[in-house]
Amino acid sequence: MKRRELLRGAGLAAVATGLAACGAQPGATPAATASDQRFEWKMVTSWPTNFPGLGTGAAKLAAMITAASGGRLTVKVYGAGELVPAFEVFDAVGRGTAEMGHSAAYYWKGKTAAAPFFCAVPFGLNAQEMNGWLYEGGGLALWRELYARFGLVPFPAGNTGVQLAGWFRKPVASLADIKGLKMRIPGLGGEVMSRVGATPVNLPGAEIFSSLQTGAIDAAEWVGPYNDLAFGLHRAAKYCYYPGWQEPGPTLECMVNQAAWESLPQDLKDIVDACCRAINDAMLAEFTARNQQALDVLVREHGVELRQLPDDLMLALRRASDKVLEEIAAGDPFARKVLESMRAFQAQARSWHAVSEEAYYASRG
Amino acid sequence: MKRRELLRGAGLAAVATGLAACGAQPGATPAATASDQRFEWKMVTSWPTNFPGLGTGAAKLAAMITAASGGRLTVKVYGAGELVPAFEVFDAVGRGTAEMGHSAAYYWKGKTAAAPFFCAVPFGLNAQEMNGWLYEGGGLALWRELYARFGLVPFPAGNTGVQLAGWFRKPVASLADIKGLKMRIPGLGGEVMSRVGATPVNLPGAEIFSSLQTGAIDAAEWVGPYNDLAFGLHRAAKYCYYPGWQEPGPTLECMVNQAAWESLPQDLKDIVDACCRAINDAMLAEFTARNQQALDVLVREHGVELRQLPDDLMLALRRASDKVLEEIAAGDPFARKVLESMRAFQAQARSWHAVSEEAYYASRG
Repeated sequence: MKRRELLRGAGLAAVATGLAACGAQPGATPAATASDQRFEWKMVTSWPTNFPGLGTGAAKLAAMITAASGGRLTVKVYGAGELVPAFEVFDAVGRGTAEMGHSAAYYWKGKTAAAPFFCAVPFGLNAQEMNGWLYEGGGLALWRELYARFGLVPFPAGNTGVQLAGWFRKPVASLADIKGLKMRIPGLGGEVMSRVGATPVNLPGAEIFSSLQTGAIDAAEWVGPYNDLAFGLHRAAKYCYYPGWQEPGPTLECMVNQAAWESLPQDLKDIVDACCRAINDAMLAEFTARNQQALDVLVREHGVELRQLPDDLMLALRRASDKVLEEIAAGDPFARKVLESMRAFQAQARSWHAVSEEAYYASRG
Repeated sequence: MKRRELLRGAGLAAVATGLAACGAQPGATPAATASDQRFEWKMVTSWPTNFPGLGTGAAKLAAMITAASGGRLTVKVYGAGELVPAFEVFDAVGRGTAEMGHSAAYYWKGKTAAAPFFCAVPFGLNAQEMNGWLYEGGGLALWRELYARFGLVPFPAGNTGVQLAGWFRKPVASLADIKGLKMRIPGLGGEVMSRVGATPVNLPGAEIFSSLQTGAIDAAEWVGPYNDLAFGLHRAAKYCYYPGWQEPGPTLECMVNQAAWESLPQDLKDIVDACCRAINDAMLAEFTARNQQALDVLVREHGVELRQLPDDLMLALRRASDKVLEEIAAGDPFARKVLESMRAFQAQARSWHAVSEEAYYASRG
């Protein structure tokens, strides 16, 4: 496995240049050539090219790495379907078809049960807490341990903040109205929805609007006002519900092929790491600013009905979420370890945020 | 002014190396030498060396820039008082004594009335919203415009999240208990406190504990559980109050001397920018994780009384805050412009966060 990846890594467009200009042999000694090696990487993504927030975030990440490295590591972005389909990013980067990918870990729950914990857990951590857990609470180390099995090195690389609960063609007045609904909702949220009587389906973003408009599905959650407006979901379903219990702060991921990663000199590794952290910050800022503008447009210009999910449904969803998480942990020892780490963090985060963020929101209101 | 700064910039330890090793003349042509120039910068800070969160954040930022640049831009950190005192960072970087500083903009309200808006405003934006406003809502452009008058280029470079309201030697049961209190509270929070009857003072962090313990002051706000525990404030004052109305999401700043900034080749500028964004993300994660752990220790091990500020005091503080902000804007046209930009952003942010972050916290609770 390791050797196969190293061989792949050797083909990853690492071309020694620069020193050639002053007469030295490219690749003569690793120490001397490290800073002059050039790398041309492909980044495959699960988003339409330049799709607001997600696609533009991936593009910004690529541009940031290219610029900060002075062009020594150029990253070219491919939208979903351009090089590989949206849901093949994980495999494509694992096998080295592309050196880098931008996606969301919960798409890989079929590959490994613990994957969704590194993106979004129903009633779990919000964006600020995800960052705390990943960077400072052991989360990222667990994520790296898991993805190493697949020849991948993951980095947190974006967050949408709390999402919307979704768009529904008919109003949802109580838990009973959920029964039998066919809803686009991926990850653990979909699992939970199935326990309260809905039929979850997963579709790439680009297919949601037409499915919802034709009635092939009855409801869909996508991201939040910024992205949902861009897809025109308000023209396909009238009722918009909050809060996004299913994705309270989904972390987006940048994944790097392990052999490609190991082929980088240390300063380029540090640049990739810094730029992923930077985009993690920048993307949430973009969603925060654009979501609120888009919400304004949806409510004031398009007359969207913004409603809170009914209490009995929320209670059922919370109970079902606990069961789903417990079942995943029961079936996979690594998932158990991740869940326990996250739960311990969440218990403390709740106590602190009750007297900080929550109490502050209330005091301002 | 410009010429003086450029002359200063020329002395900023920009030494062409590297190409010398393969026989080219250092400095021969700008394009050829840009990537081999070496810069040795000093970063002065307003924090004790390696003080948890703030000092360690500044140190991480310096290390990140040094590493990502492969040593082409090395940054050496100086704690408060090592090179210049805590509250002289702004002037020191402006005149080029150091090329870089790490501090908080509200310390400079005596220099320019609009400065505090770029750090923390009472009942203003929280961390997530500050990032949204600065990066995507026009805030950073205004900040750059303001600091350019002082020969400085500012970057958001850290955030503590919502702080605590402070530590009090006697309980605060109502607004009346605030009258006559001498309290360490800087920035606009201090201004507001003076309007409800307290006497605000500003002290560098390192002087708070002894002042509070000896009774030279009756109360003090510093940061939050993580930092307050590190200073042992619970041993000097028994009553700890929330929420931190005065600093709901203070942005910390990295400021760069403008001539030094202009002397950097583009890739090093991009590295500094990416690393500042990265530390902006990393520091909030650190505070989120460590604040909650420290709160646990304060409450469970040290028996600290954690209390909510009384309603009549909060109402008085909100009214006084509105007045203080209005007065600042009335006295300074640029401050007016900044306040209006921030207020417009905040109005939208409140609508969105009411149905996202706030509604989510409630649903989880």
